[in-house]
Amino acid sequence: MDYNAFFKDELDGVREEGRYRVFTDIKRHRGSFPQATRFIGDETQPVTVWCSNDYLGMGQHPVVVDAMHTALDECGAGAGGTRNISGTNHYHVELERELADLHGKEAALLFTSGYVSNWAGLGTLASKIPGCVVFSDALNHASMIEGIRHSRAPYKIWSHNDVEDLDRKLSDYGPDVPKLVAFESVYSMDGDIAPIADILDVCERHGAMSYIDEVHGVGLYGPRGGGVAEREGLMDRITVIEGTLGKAFGVMGGYIAASADLIDYVRTFASGFIFSTALPPAVAAGAAASIRHLKASEMERARHKDRVAQVRRRLDAIGIPHLDNPSHIIPVMVGDAKKCKMISDWLMDNHGIYVQPINYPTVPVGTERLRITPSPVHTDGDIGRLIDALSEIWSQCELARMDAVA
Amino acid sequence: MDYNAFFKDELDGVREEGRYRVFTDIKRHRGSFPQATRFIGDETQPVTVWCSNDYLGMGQHPVVVDAMHTALDECGAGAGGTRNISGTNHYHVELERELADLHGKEAALLFTSGYVSNWAGLGTLASKIPGCVVFSDALNHASMIEGIRHSRAPYKIWSHNDVEDLDRKLSDYGPDVPKLVAFESVYSMDGDIAPIADILDVCERHGAMSYIDEVHGVGLYGPRGGGVAEREGLMDRITVIEGTLGKAFGVMGGYIAASADLIDYVRTFASGFIFSTALPPAVAAGAAASIRHLKASEMERARHKDRVAQVRRRLDAIGIPHLDNPSHIIPVMVGDAKKCKMISDWLMDNHGIYVQPINYPTVPVGTERLRITPSPVHTDGDIGRLIDALSEIWSQCELARMDAVA
Ligand SMILES: Cc1ncc(COP(=O)(O)O)c(C=O)c1O
Ligand SMILES: Cc1ncc(COP(=O)(O)O)c(C=O)c1O
Repeated sequence: MDYNAFFKDELDGVREEGRYRVFTDIKRHRGSFPQATRFIGDETQPVTVWCSNDYLGMGQHPVVVDAMHTALDECGAGAGGTRNISGTNHYHVELERELADLHGKEAALLFTSGYVSNWAGLGTLASKIPGCVVFSDALNHASMIEGIRHSRAPYKIWSHNDVEDLDRKLSDYGPDVPKLVAFESVYSMDGDIAPIADILDVCERHGAMSYIDEVHGVGLYGPRGGGVAEREGLMDRITVIEGTLGKAFGVMGGYIAASADLIDYVRTFASGFIFSTALPPAVAAGAAASIRHLKASEMERARHKDRVAQVRRRLDAIGIPHLDNPSHIIPVMVGDAKKCKMISDWLMDNHGIYVQPINYPTVPVGTERLRITPSPVHTDGDIGRLIDALSEIWSQCELARMDAVA
Repeated sequence: MDYNAFFKDELDGVREEGRYRVFTDIKRHRGSFPQATRFIGDETQPVTVWCSNDYLGMGQHPVVVDAMHTALDECGAGAGGTRNISGTNHYHVELERELADLHGKEAALLFTSGYVSNWAGLGTLASKIPGCVVFSDALNHASMIEGIRHSRAPYKIWSHNDVEDLDRKLSDYGPDVPKLVAFESVYSMDGDIAPIADILDVCERHGAMSYIDEVHGVGLYGPRGGGVAEREGLMDRITVIEGTLGKAFGVMGGYIAASADLIDYVRTFASGFIFSTALPPAVAAGAAASIRHLKASEMERARHKDRVAQVRRRLDAIGIPHLDNPSHIIPVMVGDAKKCKMISDWLMDNHGIYVQPINYPTVPVGTERLRITPSPVHTDGDIGRLIDALSEIWSQCELARMDAVA
């Protein structure tokens, strides 16, 4: 078989479908983010980033950057081993304590990413608990889906955020069958939020464990940044809370928080946890500093809310259609892959505004969008320039507008 | 079901089998590694680390640490997104070029860890190439096994390093069946090295792709640190070279290097690549600096060899049994889980010498060992103290010795 010819053919197919990804090569500027430099061949261009998941700009916060410098000087670059073989650094231990405290749980376990925490966390629980059946929300993230598939446990997919459907599906199994219900708090592409309390009611009625992905909630919601479940006073009713250190906390890594026994169990049996080099001490130190800061400081969350509201209001004022949702994510709907890419390119080329087009398979065909993520570090000027540019391209392309609200 | 009772029971079982893992909590000292501080409750103890996979001490090398400081100040803490959505930093692009060059390949692709690179790399190739059959060495690492399992492709396990067995197994499939042969260069627990040239002969005869895990080879072998395959002049005959940035390079992350089309194919279809926050720019910068340094500098590799040889010679001199192998890994064989743990504890408590006991399931029952990894930063004094302590405990426990060689 000619393997390279096969790869080439497949890639041509992806290109024809208009879903070949070209990565935008940038350097974010610490201290002046959302400003960044884009690299195109030998040339560079100043850009304003409008699609980062460093939602609060914590990636450039002095407490985070300083903590990383300090740990780097103290412990060096890497952890030097897996957690079991010389790679457990005191910064990991402290970070795990910080995370357990954040979620009001007995313990927490660090992974190299949120992806790995979902994959290994769900994969281990579902595969190792004999007879376990998984109930997965239809719009769960790839990392959860892969973990569930990997476990080879039987699973049922319930309609997105549909508590009655979940209830019906759980009812098919007797009380002795171990059950694991997996869902997210904030769904990152539509920005909708799960009815967590209702889901937990159903879980408790059926004796099911609950597993929530708060990747797009932690740091952002709740009085201490514990996520949507903290805001709603529900953390103690959830079996496993999963999160990332790479989005609102601004660094990298993932984790689960739960009872001490559950954490010790996953620690003991998860291949993706134990057979991989631990996070660099500086990464753990930076994440811990970020969490600690956001536990005490409300300022970033308040200003984040304000920025999000202002962008929404100004989009409404010029009639640019965006999904109405209760979160911080603003999907500006385009509904066509090529148009979406074209608008994104135009914004970049003409205004140095960087908003990545989101196309299939990340979202369904016909719902292609620009996913805008305002952050506390976007100024009024940044917002003004974004709105003006969007208005201009909307007119130029004769794209549909909604009735202007103001 | 009482889930916590279940977890507790299972953990009790693990404890009874003597394979419950207790992580050693340390801070490595940048500038004076292998010295580190161990944390035990509120107390601390100075220790010398003898089991790190920061094989060359690059985790504290000024070129690495400085590059990380610089990138941290320039770009901030995290990448701020997945590679596709604002997370591609120029440091990633440069690192991928550095890696492609290291292995003489057209392209390379970064992952968050070596674990994820194997899991996603093998998983994607094996699942997406229609009809692909995988041929996996019996002692392959967990991350390769999980990737192969995850792909759901049919697979055959060939006897460890047994080229004839591989040949026989490949012969069962016609020339039109896509085939992927997966193996390692240096096996990390026994320290033995695969007969790479012979394996490649067989692969080529059967039209199979070859996939080598050089996680314990990169940085350490070959005139530029390209791994065992570089040393043996075989890189251009291998389809995919996989490696880590977390061991000899001293930082964190993983990668594959291959043809441009193969890399673009995995980039496009690997869920574990695309749906996860990218490595922090500082991590990428540190890894690139480490690779660049080790491409040009032979000093670390020469001193590493010298240290390994000296530890071997001195173990021989006092008759302490260790596996004879052609690599840098020195497994001191104990052959009993409890004894192994006991010796490790004794070394730590009485001499501040940290060597993690390696027990089942990492190695087969009856082959429990202390896995010693000398590095260029271990002094003659460190070696002397290690040898004296081992000699003392060997006498004290009346452990078997070999005939002393010198
Ligand atoms: C819902 C959700 N879960 C998990 C992840 C993975 O987290 P990480 O980026 O830390 O790997 C992501 C995105 O990257 C996500 O959107
Ligand atoms: C052979 C082998 N492959 C892959 C890995 C995983 O690499 P990483 O530690 O970068 O996740 C390891 C060890 O951790 C390993 O020993």
